Amino acid sequence: MNGNFTYCNPTKLYFGRGAIENLNIELPKYGKSVALVYGGGSIKKNGIYDRVVEILKANGKEIAEISGVMPNPTIEKLYEGMEIARRAKCDLILAVGGGSVCDYSKALSASVNCEGDPWQKYYIDFEEPSCRTLPVGCVLTMAGTGSEMNAGAVITNHAQKLKIGHVFADEKMMPRFSVLDPEYTLTLPRYQVMAGIYDIFNHICEQYFSGEDDNTSDYLSEGLMRSLIISSRAANKDLNDYEARSNIMWTATWALNTLIACGKTTDWEVHMLGQAVGAYTDATHGMTLAAVSLPYYRHIMPYGLKKFARFAVNVWGVDHAGKSDRQTAGEGLSRLEGWMRELGLVMNITELGATPDMVEGIADSTLIMQGGYKVLTRAEVVQILKESL
Amino acid sequence: MNGNFTYCNPTKLYFGRGAIENLNIELPKYGKSVALVYGGGSIKKNGIYDRVVEILKANGKEIAEISGVMPNPTIEKLYEGMEIARRAKCDLILAVGGGSVCDYSKALSASVNCEGDPWQKYYIDFEEPSCRTLPVGCVLTMAGTGSEMNAGAVITNHAQKLKIGHVFADEKMMPRFSVLDPEYTLTLPRYQVMAGIYDIFNHICEQYFSGEDDNTSDYLSEGLMRSLIISSRAANKDLNDYEARSNIMWTATWALNTLIACGKTTDWEVHMLGQAVGAYTDATHGMTLAAVSLPYYRHIMPYGLKKFARFAVNVWGVDHAGKSDRQTAGEGLSRLEGWMRELGLVMNITELGATPDMVEGIADSTLIMQGGYKVLTRAEVVQILKESL
Repeated sequence: MNGNFTYCNPTKLYFGRGAIENLNIELPKYGKSVALVYGGGSIKKNGIYDRVVEILKANGKEIAEISGVMPNPTIEKLYEGMEIARRAKCDLILAVGGGSVCDYSKALSASVNCEGDPWQKYYIDFEEPSCRTLPVGCVLTMAGTGSEMNAGAVITNHAQKLKIGHVFADEKMMPRFSVLDPEYTLTLPRYQVMAGIYDIFNHICEQYFSGEDDNTSDYLSEGLMRSLIISSRAANKDLNDYEARSNIMWTATWALNTLIACGKTTDWEVHMLGQAVGAYTDATHGMTLAAVSLPYYRHIMPYGLKKFARFAVNVWGVDHAGKSDRQTAGEGLSRLEGWMRELGLVMNITELGATPDMVEGIADSTLIMQGGYKVLTRAEVVQILKESL
Repeated sequence: MNGNFTYCNPTKLYFGRGAIENLNIELPKYGKSVALVYGGGSIKKNGIYDRVVEILKANGKEIAEISGVMPNPTIEKLYEGMEIARRAKCDLILAVGGGSVCDYSKALSASVNCEGDPWQKYYIDFEEPSCRTLPVGCVLTMAGTGSEMNAGAVITNHAQKLKIGHVFADEKMMPRFSVLDPEYTLTLPRYQVMAGIYDIFNHICEQYFSGEDDNTSDYLSEGLMRSLIISSRAANKDLNDYEARSNIMWTATWALNTLIACGKTTDWEVHMLGQAVGAYTDATHGMTLAAVSLPYYRHIMPYGLKKFARFAVNVWGVDHAGKSDRQTAGEGLSRLEGWMRELGLVMNITELGATPDMVEGIADSTLIMQGGYKVLTRAEVVQILKESL
């Protein structure tokens, strides 16, 4: 590890069955008015909503509801939430849902007390909040994004066909606490579970496939990937396997809370491609990543051959003896593809609703990152998108 | 992962060359009076003391020095520091040194404002502080103990022949910030570096060799061990290899900041044996662990055969094909022994000053833990100590 860095992740995590009861420890630390943020209402069917409201009331809280936060939360939805939170003078934002609800809540935290348009401020100019932000707590119902322990918030602007993530600089923008009960993820549909698993895996890849030095972070990444592969196969066999779902939930948190990027450059080009596809199709985030990954990795493999060969050996157990780096690296990507097909991931963007005539537009919406083994040209972006159709 | 747990580590880590300059960000957050805690004076020779004092003065601080903290800090030394910090009405404790200096500073933090005897309170009755504790910051000069990002504090009582660690429950007892500059560790003597490396490795083992479920924590542990083995070999060849020393320093932090124990039972019997040896011989902590490890692991291997075989394959790359678990597990421990000899670790307690007539006394001082694959009887403790002579 040659790089310098600062690491600080103060989020308090309550993990395991019944972890929701820890809200009784956290809630008394904040004022009376709570913005309760959630999505399409699945938490009303599985009882989580009722339990959360019960605990909020038992702690004497007044609730301002911000419901209907969509899978790719929009800037218009953010404006709506700002109005509600301002009117209610909220002291705490409690997100109950998956990564979108957590992301939305962080964007809201940075916008309630601030002057100006948050889209321009945070997603075009990438400024930091100049106002008092609100504390955020999360009750997580889906594993994948890692939003429960980081300062990232992705917002979509359909009018501008942009889906952009802002990672706030101040660790105070990370959730103050997050409740992670793997049982809360058991009622999710298979499609969402598998999309979440690939989102996790790809978060690790984006940080792993970058840099040339020997770095402890990469060994941690390999450990997380090995754990995820084993747990995902167990969950694929039985979605109710608590042990597996528990490991998946925990891996998600550590895949994107900055630990495995410490002292490293990172890539994130797959996310840029996937987010551009998402802005055009509104498809499930993890599936957009799955659909563009293999064309991207096969394209950059020759430029990071040593790392791709290491990936094959250390993550997939490929035997390197008597093989060239190129052969071993290729076998690693074939193993990755096999696992992705096993999980039933979407392997092309056509299935997600993208059409050939969208390719140029998606390419225009794709940010080009600097950290990967090959910085793409626009022509290469187009080529990868065509190979992803 | 089947267990429930809470995770929170708010320590802010400044890592890399020149990281000391970040004191200028941290110091203004605290009051005027700073207790500057350090050891035998090596920081005066390598210039670290001068730079720290310069920065403290530039930030308008008044310094109360607590110097001469020994490698196994004693309860008498703690009483002395309490007097100094009380007189100076300290607002912040700044530890500049290795794990002993950091541990001592945390014990001091919990004792300055408290009534009663800290030995009785924290090390016999294992109470939590009932008073206002002082914030601690660390400038680390040796990699090994992980004290820079945890709430542990080991203190030795020579009169009672006890060396006991207290892990405080409140995350506020963790250092508020730690400065980790790998260059600060480059001037350490080889013996200390290698002892630190084995301390790190053993911290991981104590958490890894426990439990039967599939747990993400164990995959992270394997990643840390693999990284440490590679970096330790590079450092053994060239102590000035910054990349290796940097990885070692980072691995040390994550080996003992509670992450890899999440959702798990843990063992810690090697530390109990080593600390008892330390109480009798005052030997370097890491070497006491090295000297008792192999007799202990060979003794418990049959009770945790599956995990020891996994250790052999996933950490040491032993080929399991066509072998029994017992064969593979045995090969793993042989590889471990080979690596320990390569690093020049002390492989028996005789070399550390222990004599056969001390064995019964050391056994009396050895706490018996409940989390390992075999809970030892006193007779087994004696047997392992005899095999360690």
